[in-house]
Amino acid sequence: MNNRMVKKTTQQELIRRRQHFMGNAYRLFYDRPLHIVRGEGVWLYDSDGRKYLDVYNNVPHVGHCHPHVVEAISRQTRVLNTHTRYLHEGILEYSQRLTRKFPEGLDIAMFSCTGTEANELALRLARAKTGGTGMIVSEHAYHGNSWAIAQITTACETSEERGDNIVSVPSPDSYRGLYAGQDQAAEKYAAHVATAIDMLAQRGHRPAAFIVDTILSSDGLPTIPAGYLARAVEIVRDAGGLFVADEVQPGFGRMGSEFWGFATHNVVPDVVTMGKPMGNGYPVSAMVTSRGVIDEFTGHSHYFNTFGGNPVACAAAMAVLDVIEQENLQSNALEVGAYIRRGLRQLAGNHELIGDIRGSGLFIGVDLVLDRDTREPATDAANRIANLLSQRGILVGTEGPHDNVLKLRPPMVFSRHNADLLLQGIEDVLVLEPAS
Amino acid sequence: MNNRMVKKTTQQELIRRRQHFMGNAYRLFYDRPLHIVRGEGVWLYDSDGRKYLDVYNNVPHVGHCHPHVVEAISRQTRVLNTHTRYLHEGILEYSQRLTRKFPEGLDIAMFSCTGTEANELALRLARAKTGGTGMIVSEHAYHGNSWAIAQITTACETSEERGDNIVSVPSPDSYRGLYAGQDQAAEKYAAHVATAIDMLAQRGHRPAAFIVDTILSSDGLPTIPAGYLARAVEIVRDAGGLFVADEVQPGFGRMGSEFWGFATHNVVPDVVTMGKPMGNGYPVSAMVTSRGVIDEFTGHSHYFNTFGGNPVACAAAMAVLDVIEQENLQSNALEVGAYIRRGLRQLAGNHELIGDIRGSGLFIGVDLVLDRDTREPATDAANRIANLLSQRGILVGTEGPHDNVLKLRPPMVFSRHNADLLLQGIEDVLVLEPAS
Repeated sequence: MNNRMVKKTTQQELIRRRQHFMGNAYRLFYDRPLHIVRGEGVWLYDSDGRKYLDVYNNVPHVGHCHPHVVEAISRQTRVLNTHTRYLHEGILEYSQRLTRKFPEGLDIAMFSCTGTEANELALRLARAKTGGTGMIVSEHAYHGNSWAIAQITTACETSEERGDNIVSVPSPDSYRGLYAGQDQAAEKYAAHVATAIDMLAQRGHRPAAFIVDTILSSDGLPTIPAGYLARAVEIVRDAGGLFVADEVQPGFGRMGSEFWGFATHNVVPDVVTMGKPMGNGYPVSAMVTSRGVIDEFTGHSHYFNTFGGNPVACAAAMAVLDVIEQENLQSNALEVGAYIRRGLRQLAGNHELIGDIRGSGLFIGVDLVLDRDTREPATDAANRIANLLSQRGILVGTEGPHDNVLKLRPPMVFSRHNADLLLQGIEDVLVLEPAS
Repeated sequence: MNNRMVKKTTQQELIRRRQHFMGNAYRLFYDRPLHIVRGEGVWLYDSDGRKYLDVYNNVPHVGHCHPHVVEAISRQTRVLNTHTRYLHEGILEYSQRLTRKFPEGLDIAMFSCTGTEANELALRLARAKTGGTGMIVSEHAYHGNSWAIAQITTACETSEERGDNIVSVPSPDSYRGLYAGQDQAAEKYAAHVATAIDMLAQRGHRPAAFIVDTILSSDGLPTIPAGYLARAVEIVRDAGGLFVADEVQPGFGRMGSEFWGFATHNVVPDVVTMGKPMGNGYPVSAMVTSRGVIDEFTGHSHYFNTFGGNPVACAAAMAVLDVIEQENLQSNALEVGAYIRRGLRQLAGNHELIGDIRGSGLFIGVDLVLDRDTREPATDAANRIANLLSQRGILVGTEGPHDNVLKLRPPMVFSRHNADLLLQGIEDVLVLEPAS
């Protein structure tokens, strides 16, 4: 057999073993799944030593295997890894440093291991604080995988029926759908949130929380009408509910202009959740809130999360903040993100397939369309392009209700040079597209 | 100020910062909380360099900071830490090795980060498979901290009302309560489970799952009547429900006689969950089940857990299995556990406070009583003894519905010499007890 055949056999064998030992619930990226064995900065390497420019993974926020984070994890793992029932400086220093990144009042941090767990805690707090049970969510939201969070994860089909305490509101998309090209979209969006509250009331639920991923990534990163969120939040608060900002995707400087997604909307949340990028891959997540919100919960419940905020998790998270600051990664996201969008706009001049370019900092959505007038989603083309790019050594994803949005969300150390490679790669595959 | 005053100030300052930055939901162990800065094997060290024999922590299963696990985590963290949407040998090798530890048929592993998440997945699977919503749990159970799992965590007060789909059954305690000194306790326990199913039916719920921590740790590690569990499981299965064995506490050889707690009851579960000790502190957990159980869920739902089963988690978990095998830790648990129980029985000869000595392998409960005839729980004494021991450099916990059971659950590398120190320490504080 030649090398290519050996490789194919190996891949098939790995896939067979995966199905055998891990069942059918897991999915792999790309038609030709990748067997990744090494990562460094913005690069991933497969078992043949082939390298891939990672324009997808936000978990390795400061770059795959960043030496400062690796060293922090290794050092603390060697010394101590216990839990929050002993005193430890690490969690206190990190809590202090983290809460300083928030507006005044949001000064309490609690720790868990995953975004799902942070959202679970947020919703338990919201229910305790408000006495309500109603949840208002976006119509194509992703918030996690537990039972209660799968209920509000409207982007995914689930084996469970959704409770009548959950109402979704249309995605505030200014490009396609209800609000497209409309004046006063913010008012219209706010009216939908008000309607959701009425629906909940009719079903006997007072609102506990309005929860939003502040970049609305699974909704396809729509460009959000100015002020839309603040107005909606006001309505929810008037009805007694809390606003939970899910910063698992936008947080930690990725937006470029701001450290948190909510700040781009000029609104201060009641509760903030964060996860994926927080420990550069070490499982750690957090929820930040105020004393006024938490006290109702803590009056009835303790909280213990065995691994949550353990000394290694805090060392990893601290090292991530170090690197973000030392390497000016928020400004890098602002600058390189803008550079990529400019490049994409130039490509759009020659390629009708590109309908819209959206996002903020180093989180970019490219909405592909079959027709710029009708804005019909080019779902197949998006899928084809993501696959072609992966075969050419560039990793991107697809996103949105129609799965037609190219999702560009690289590690924050992504450079202009990397951006040039990405733009060249996109151009190379766009010319292969019949519609383009 | 002398050293003692400096220390006290530091502790108070740490506690003050904790409340300030982390709120009031967290609890600390002991009346004089410990400021632990280093761990090694069965030893923890505080900020004054004072050492403590750890007879409590099961998360550092193969010992605090075991070099083989530290090296595995450091090595893989340097090389790659992605997720399950690329192929990776680590998760396949671990899944294969893990599932080989189970009876035939339990051959599929799925990964998450915490015991809570593993239990969440188990319950979602059970609901999908059975079409039922009813949960049967022990009356003083601990299974985790998410909304759905807090519902079945009957040991903890919560801010939420429990759903009517949850029914608890009395703890099958042969020492105290309903079944104490009773013949045919297994039949009586089974009858309670049958009653629980009837109660669920009256409320319109078919049973989805009967979930049990197979050492019933939060129930105080009762000695369970032979065959009780098998009979109860049969009844649940006849009614269409699944049996979920929560092995977060007993799993990975701690029972000494068996690798899993369920095996000590001669019953094969439909679903098994595991967590805490799995990665020696690295956040990783898993659920193991059969194809027949999982397929209903996977027909409707995908599962993705960002950090769950990532390459570092699998490297850590693999290293833990290496050490368990290379250092014969299961036999060590059997032998040293029996040695401790013998020593405790000798102490019981002189100390009336010791009412009952229970448990298996290196998970031991010492039930303290005010009176051996009435078996009235000596809650205050248990609390006093745990605190006195901590001040003498020995860390134990208390457990059970009356919080009167000393909980001895050390890292699995606990030696006979360590056991002698523990027994001497217990004797030293017992002589201070007025009732003893």
